[in-house]
Amino acid sequence: MKQKIRVGIVGYGNLGRGVELALRQNPDMNLCAFFTRRAPGALTTLSPNVPVYHVDDLISYADAIDVLILCGGSATDLPVQSPLFVRHFNIVDSFDNHSKIPEHFAACDASAKESGKIAFISGGWDPGMFSLQRLLGNCILPDGNDYTFWGRGVSQGHSDAIRRIEGVLDAKQYTIPIESALTKVRAGENPTLSTREKHMRECFVVAEDGADLARIENEIKTMPGYFADYDTVVHFITMEELKRDHAGIPHGGFVLRSGVTGEQKETKQMIEYSLSLGSNPEFTASVLVACARAVYRLSAKGECGAKTIFDIPPALLSPKDGAALRKELL
Amino acid sequence: MKQKIRVGIVGYGNLGRGVELALRQNPDMNLCAFFTRRAPGALTTLSPNVPVYHVDDLISYADAIDVLILCGGSATDLPVQSPLFVRHFNIVDSFDNHSKIPEHFAACDASAKESGKIAFISGGWDPGMFSLQRLLGNCILPDGNDYTFWGRGVSQGHSDAIRRIEGVLDAKQYTIPIESALTKVRAGENPTLSTREKHMRECFVVAEDGADLARIENEIKTMPGYFADYDTVVHFITMEELKRDHAGIPHGGFVLRSGVTGEQKETKQMIEYSLSLGSNPEFTASVLVACARAVYRLSAKGECGAKTIFDIPPALLSPKDGAALRKELL
Repeated sequence: MKQKIRVGIVGYGNLGRGVELALRQNPDMNLCAFFTRRAPGALTTLSPNVPVYHVDDLISYADAIDVLILCGGSATDLPVQSPLFVRHFNIVDSFDNHSKIPEHFAACDASAKESGKIAFISGGWDPGMFSLQRLLGNCILPDGNDYTFWGRGVSQGHSDAIRRIEGVLDAKQYTIPIESALTKVRAGENPTLSTREKHMRECFVVAEDGADLARIENEIKTMPGYFADYDTVVHFITMEELKRDHAGIPHGGFVLRSGVTGEQKETKQMIEYSLSLGSNPEFTASVLVACARAVYRLSAKGECGAKTIFDIPPALLSPKDGAALRKELL
Repeated sequence: MKQKIRVGIVGYGNLGRGVELALRQNPDMNLCAFFTRRAPGALTTLSPNVPVYHVDDLISYADAIDVLILCGGSATDLPVQSPLFVRHFNIVDSFDNHSKIPEHFAACDASAKESGKIAFISGGWDPGMFSLQRLLGNCILPDGNDYTFWGRGVSQGHSDAIRRIEGVLDAKQYTIPIESALTKVRAGENPTLSTREKHMRECFVVAEDGADLARIENEIKTMPGYFADYDTVVHFITMEELKRDHAGIPHGGFVLRSGVTGEQKETKQMIEYSLSLGSNPEFTASVLVACARAVYRLSAKGECGAKTIFDIPPALLSPKDGAALRKELL
């Protein structure tokens, strides 16, 4: 029997739990351990038979794990953990701070080349699958424009920003692509779209009893960097309604490449990729798990260094071999 | 200055002309020669400065060409040409007979491994980009269903089949996905769809004066393998109308992966990829040109054998380097 790929999970929030579940859907992979900064005994996972260790003990398990999937945040966790842990492990992360990707790549690449391991960075859907679609669109249609829309989906960062306002108990913010903008793009009009024309923001807010709702609404709508550049709708609801109607973490979006071909560039060609995700972290996790498989294989071939979805022969993401893929999916 | 990739085109139909035009949109590539089975002097291309040679003289140009793009048909041309020409050239083809891909791959792989060249087969959009999306969807969402819809677009094979009917002067057939089926798939209903439920066929037919239109319509609608399993609409129009309204070769389609994640597989996740193409051959050609770039680079690295889109690190399709791609598109 073929040896299963031995996977460890670092960090057990929504994403870590998503990876735990995604691994169950991939029988060629085996979840070997969780690593946490919390007291290991205090962590209750969905997999009672899988051991939980403290992340400080990580290095002791270097020989027992083929790929480590890092499920921390991009703000402070991954910039430290990814270059550090790749000294001993092949790693996969979902680093999603777009502007800092070159820096993160360089740090991981240096560490990984020293250790002979692979650091797959920025897995997920954006960056990740959306990036891949942007790349493919640009390669196929060099004369064209890229459009990326996000949503309808929950933005954790915007929800958090609302929660920091005085008088707010809880909140959920949805980013919503503006349908008329999408329609123009799909028609090949190649519009120049302002921030306000591409997305709107819808907020569901639970306020403290007696809070000044007009002030809260105004603070949200004028918040620079988060809401000021958008048309924003604010709904005040009860905690019960929030828990009942807004418990999920859906997301999704659209990547379009609107290009032209032909002797006079007269032929319109449109590529559209879209995701409609019931759970953002579960989908992101599913991508990371497929990437972990590719990392394992590249590592077995002797490759090392930092990699992104741009560098991976797609067949390596699949548990099937080349002949089966060609027969069934090509 | 970096050496441009030197490309030759074999065959000058719609696809060959599409490649000729696509190369103009890719400044890192240079069209060096056309090869034809016709008398070279009789071929008028859009590139009067590019020489036209007889395909029998192909081997003389082995040192002058980095990648040969084969623009013949899958029925009789490519099964012979691809394994033959890869003995002397890196080649790219658009072999699209899905059931014979394993056989074509094997023949090309054997030749290519002997010569040390690369045979990239089945480039284009289906097989090609659609295949890649099916592969990615399967890797990310192992529990799910694949749906591929084609159209609205011209089927050359079905148009030809109508033209063979007695009394028909010319015809154009459009394959049309059935919207209600797409809607069910997008809703995550995972329907089982019959052939008739997925697509309908619309035919625009020019009949001879005095032909028995009822007989022609009946022969079309009952034609086994082509129309009998579909709801088919037949319109009789004049030659002028056909030339005026149906001169283009549009196509496109949809690839959907409808999957589930979560502890009880309760979370619906939907991936959709769609193409809306003003010209099928120009788009197919654009894909082949990007693949030719990847082939050139893989060959420069010393790789050989048959390859498909499943085997290509996506970054190799782009003229930009890794750092630029990560900064701009990841």
